[in-house]
Amino acid sequence: MTAVAPSAVLDRLKATLGPGGWSDDPDRLAPKLVEWRERWHGATPLLVLPRCTREVAAVVAICAEAGVAITPQGGNTGLVGGQIPQGEILLSTERLRAVRDADRLDDVLVVEAGLTLAETHAAALELGRRFPLDLASEGSATIGGLISTNAGGTAVLRYGSMRGLVLGIEAVLPDGQVWDGLKRLRKDNTGYDLKQMLIGAEGTLGVVTAAALKLVPVLASRAVALAAVAGPREAIELLVRAKDETGGEVEAFELISRLGVELAVKNLVGLRDPLETITPWVVLVEIASASPGAAEALLERLLAHALEDQIIANAALAQSGEQAKAFWALREGQSATQKAEGPAWKHDVSVPISRIASFLETATARLGERFPGVRVDAFGHVGDGNIHFDVLAPVNGDYALHTARRDEGARLVHDLVVSLGGSISAEHGLGSMKTAEALRYKSPVEVAALRALRQALDPKRIMNPRVLF
Amino acid sequence: MTAVAPSAVLDRLKATLGPGGWSDDPDRLAPKLVEWRERWHGATPLLVLPRCTREVAAVVAICAEAGVAITPQGGNTGLVGGQIPQGEILLSTERLRAVRDADRLDDVLVVEAGLTLAETHAAALELGRRFPLDLASEGSATIGGLISTNAGGTAVLRYGSMRGLVLGIEAVLPDGQVWDGLKRLRKDNTGYDLKQMLIGAEGTLGVVTAAALKLVPVLASRAVALAAVAGPREAIELLVRAKDETGGEVEAFELISRLGVELAVKNLVGLRDPLETITPWVVLVEIASASPGAAEALLERLLAHALEDQIIANAALAQSGEQAKAFWALREGQSATQKAEGPAWKHDVSVPISRIASFLETATARLGERFPGVRVDAFGHVGDGNIHFDVLAPVNGDYALHTARRDEGARLVHDLVVSLGGSISAEHGLGSMKTAEALRYKSPVEVAALRALRQALDPKRIMNPRVLF
Repeated sequence: MTAVAPSAVLDRLKATLGPGGWSDDPDRLAPKLVEWRERWHGATPLLVLPRCTREVAAVVAICAEAGVAITPQGGNTGLVGGQIPQGEILLSTERLRAVRDADRLDDVLVVEAGLTLAETHAAALELGRRFPLDLASEGSATIGGLISTNAGGTAVLRYGSMRGLVLGIEAVLPDGQVWDGLKRLRKDNTGYDLKQMLIGAEGTLGVVTAAALKLVPVLASRAVALAAVAGPREAIELLVRAKDETGGEVEAFELISRLGVELAVKNLVGLRDPLETITPWVVLVEIASASPGAAEALLERLLAHALEDQIIANAALAQSGEQAKAFWALREGQSATQKAEGPAWKHDVSVPISRIASFLETATARLGERFPGVRVDAFGHVGDGNIHFDVLAPVNGDYALHTARRDEGARLVHDLVVSLGGSISAEHGLGSMKTAEALRYKSPVEVAALRALRQALDPKRIMNPRVLF
Repeated sequence: MTAVAPSAVLDRLKATLGPGGWSDDPDRLAPKLVEWRERWHGATPLLVLPRCTREVAAVVAICAEAGVAITPQGGNTGLVGGQIPQGEILLSTERLRAVRDADRLDDVLVVEAGLTLAETHAAALELGRRFPLDLASEGSATIGGLISTNAGGTAVLRYGSMRGLVLGIEAVLPDGQVWDGLKRLRKDNTGYDLKQMLIGAEGTLGVVTAAALKLVPVLASRAVALAAVAGPREAIELLVRAKDETGGEVEAFELISRLGVELAVKNLVGLRDPLETITPWVVLVEIASASPGAAEALLERLLAHALEDQIIANAALAQSGEQAKAFWALREGQSATQKAEGPAWKHDVSVPISRIASFLETATARLGERFPGVRVDAFGHVGDGNIHFDVLAPVNGDYALHTARRDEGARLVHDLVVSLGGSISAEHGLGSMKTAEALRYKSPVEVAALRALRQALDPKRIMNPRVLF
């Protein structure tokens, strides 16, 4: 792999793709070279814009032959730098946008990599079905990127992450060959499942060009509530009851710290806290059911029992779709609301559900000791053990100092997470940002195996070479 | 890899494991060297019986160093010869039987590879939870084998196959190193998911020694019915309605041919057909729900509407647990009942659900043309597109001739399956029996990738070398 692409290779790429199939115009490139938080800035000698799988294959074959590196990019919503080239050819999937097939009997949607999640949702609904992956960046995140990062979001508790929602994949492998793995089977045991290697590979094992996605029924009733709880232990007890009482009909179970609720109300227009009792934590629960009215009934019963047994202090059940959206806005506004509070250390971690309470208690205590005054805004998909554990600067604190100590804070948090059997990247991946950190914690046995697997499929390491191990 | 283990290696293995840790007694070995249908007979110089992961690692390290091949074996229930050694060291997991942990908050059971599925079910129930993998051989099939074959069964429609039910794996890799991947996380995106390589690898990438399994709630109500349908198209229409009306609460959706029902009633003691109308096909539907009584109500409504719309001709709803079992016995007796009818060609195939009807029609017609008089007994997990398409000899036919033409029949069936986008091994795997057949259909691109991955993890090819590519 060479860091700088020879101009002969660039010329071959341009000739192969023809006019409109590439760009080196700085204005065209600019939005693709910066991550939305502006934390990552990139560079590329050429943006390639293949129109079909065959053109992707041609690009990869030319680069493979010359040993020139490629960074694939979907909607550019990644948070760990994995999609930002640093000298690599930038391959955008923005023109691979066809819905190739939609089948009601198979419960399958076959779409190309550049389709956004929102467009995928719409295509599923047209079929009277749902594609159950929900996350905030649905308007820009693309199917190829969501597969390559094994995206999660708020509905993982019930439907699993992308890994469980993909029935088949078409991809261009690092040697430029097309692998047609676009099956739509629920059962297929004929050797290693190659698509599982590509899911979550962050573009290091090839370019995903299309996928067959699993659809689920649209549910008839849906109910959302906020509940005030004394602590994470009570939240988890409520989670266990919710799962048991509904038989797994919990669509989302999110935790928000009191600080998070207060900042959302303070910094975001039109938000208010509907709970009467002020407790250190707030839970958002969503139940959905096939029977009309059933979700509301299940949720009401769950909350009534939990109140009776003093697991929750107070609850507010959304009385309309409008109100449900307002409840969700408190949760989904967490990243946005932090911006007014200066720099934040962000940690996307997971721990076993049984350890969430002790993680939150211990991490908060240790941070308070080491960095007096910092404010913890923890929130996230607690039903999956996934916490976005964000740490804000002290009120009126030194922002530059806070930014400077970010890695020190991350080390403290990650050490604790790993000691509790957790993961330092629950859903964002490693990208170029977290790879070194992950190497600290992974066993040498595992790292050696993962490297051997990569080497097997991409011996020249041309696919996203700075990403992963 | 050497075909014959040098006696020095055998001596090292014996010394390492000590008395009781190995056997070469033919009587002790015999049941492990024959598959239960007696189709596969094997041979081994030594049976090793490690007591713990450390001992498994020691065995594999010794073999790896000497380049001696190993065949791992769990409950010896495999149907494709993958667990039967032909000269390899036979490594049984029968002594790895601990339940290492059970956690109600994490909804996790951590068990060793040699525990049977029935024992795993029991351990989950003790915790007030369910491990939702259901198949007929639960009394002997072990967790290690179920993982290594990515087992399916009757509840895949709702809960997925083993691949989706395993949160973490501990395994000894082909170089003898222990990989501790026993995480219990719902979200973890820190590089390729190594456990996905081991699931379904049929013992070719290492020995699974323990696993963290995902548990689900025990459901309060459960209802089973048989329904008479004119053909597979009507069955699929009923399936689509069942999924829509229940929001995914369909636990099982099985199809049985009329011949299958008749043979079960004729050959098995105590079975009867509860349906009043004789149609070419019968469907078994099971619904389960968290709300008491809800499953019965949902199933009754589904069947009433389907009768009204003439999708089904008649239905019988089980009135007791006893009767539900009797309905299931018609389905589960299909393999047993064929024994009285002479040799059968067995095909474990899957096709997209939208193609099931055309697969069954075309396959039956083509077989009838080429092999006049053969009788098709098709049954299986039609909700997953998985059909056990078995072909019996003609009544009073030449059994020897039928057996002799098995491969010819398989070729006809498999060609059709693949042309419809299906799989020639839906749930049984390839073992040593179907690998050559799979090579006919897999693309060279995929085979090359799978071989490179294997070579990366097991360069000496010591793990189950005759199995897979």
